[in-house]
Amino acid sequence: MISYFKAVIAYDGTAFLGFQIQTSGRTVQGVIEAALTEIAKNPVRIIGAGRTDTGVHALGQVISFALPWKHSCHKLQIALNVKLPTDVTICSLSEADADFHPRYTAKSRQYKYVISTSSTKNIFSRQYALWLNTSIDVSVLQQASACLIGTHDFAAFGKPPQGTNTVRTVFQAEWLCYVDEIIFEITADAFLYRMVRNIVGTLLQAGLGQITVNDVHGILLSKSRATCGPPVAPQGLFLVKVNY
Amino acid sequence: MISYFKAVIAYDGTAFLGFQIQTSGRTVQGVIEAALTEIAKNPVRIIGAGRTDTGVHALGQVISFALPWKHSCHKLQIALNVKLPTDVTICSLSEADADFHPRYTAKSRQYKYVISTSSTKNIFSRQYALWLNTSIDVSVLQQASACLIGTHDFAAFGKPPQGTNTVRTVFQAEWLCYVDEIIFEITADAFLYRMVRNIVGTLLQAGLGQITVNDVHGILLSKSRATCGPPVAPQGLFLVKVNY
Repeated sequence: MISYFKAVIAYDGTAFLGFQIQTSGRTVQGVIEAALTEIAKNPVRIIGAGRTDTGVHALGQVISFALPWKHSCHKLQIALNVKLPTDVTICSLSEADADFHPRYTAKSRQYKYVISTSSTKNIFSRQYALWLNTSIDVSVLQQASACLIGTHDFAAFGKPPQGTNTVRTVFQAEWLCYVDEIIFEITADAFLYRMVRNIVGTLLQAGLGQITVNDVHGILLSKSRATCGPPVAPQGLFLVKVNY
Repeated sequence: MISYFKAVIAYDGTAFLGFQIQTSGRTVQGVIEAALTEIAKNPVRIIGAGRTDTGVHALGQVISFALPWKHSCHKLQIALNVKLPTDVTICSLSEADADFHPRYTAKSRQYKYVISTSSTKNIFSRQYALWLNTSIDVSVLQQASACLIGTHDFAAFGKPPQGTNTVRTVFQAEWLCYVDEIIFEITADAFLYRMVRNIVGTLLQAGLGQITVNDVHGILLSKSRATCGPPVAPQGLFLVKVNY
């Protein structure tokens, strides 16, 4: 008797070649499928809500899979966590409908990008934040982010997955200030490849005074990737949650 | 012309076999001496205030060294940080008297031990905290710590460096509570080998109800290492600062 499951997982992307399984190299999908296959004693495939890149982290990635399982969800969660390496964990696990698809049924995804603004480098956040060793005008970052909200063609900020267009709807795009950190939070129905890192790279150019707030809007309207700033490093990026 | 320097350094102990240089293996002393030797084009030795174990971190370790250097301290700090790997950094650097000795002249050291108390494992703190997957009575931890303050023979909690006794003076021993963390802070004139980890291991036994608060005092008075709890894992331990 096959059961269907939905799980919320977290991982530290530092030692993974991204989420999606590759012909070689360590991936999140690879280690989770290996653990499930060991439990099921048969090959198990998982589906993820989003394909995070090499070095990108997740606090609330969502996966689904099917498995013959007679015990409780809690027992499956424990069994999986025992088999998983220390840099990935199952945060929660529940039964799902057979037709639940983490990617197609997702209403929105939230990412955050963490920038360390401490005067000296915090070595403990080197794999979880971008250290910006210069002062930045957060009010400019905030203003420059405003034009992103709504439904737009985001072609300037990333490539679409095969067979889809570049129009996306951004519900939230804002900067939060903490003592030694600034964090960009962005929620959209879906994202293009590298979209968040390209957007943050462009917004930082505005925050550093290299371009104006109006230039950011112009880059969005240009629909040309030649105009956007360089993508920021992956280690500051976290997939926060997926909403259904 | 030789100048003498004092530097405050931070390191992530995860990938180091401790502070002190070994015949083989990566150590904090080893990588800093390699960087200094490259700058000086001659072998440079450093002295550290404390010899942290494998996996133990530092936020404010203090080192001293001598070097021919014609430029500012700030330039030396930058030159060193460029050469150092990403898991160790020079936080500050100043000139020192030729007779400054980080270990012998230190008045006290402060360590902290971080315990994660979140209901699900936070994989991002796996190398920087001990995850305690059970509830613990912090008021008991606090009471059990009180007997440590003052000048005592701490033989029950660790071995002394060669040629010294086991009497130490503890100035501070307290638990701080945060949302998903409890932190033990301890300040003493000096510490025995593994003293903090043995103390925390014993205090946790009290916090978990395995022994009483009075038992902790009895262990201290016994002066026998056979009585103390097992040392906690190194990854939660940080050398916070050294006072002169």
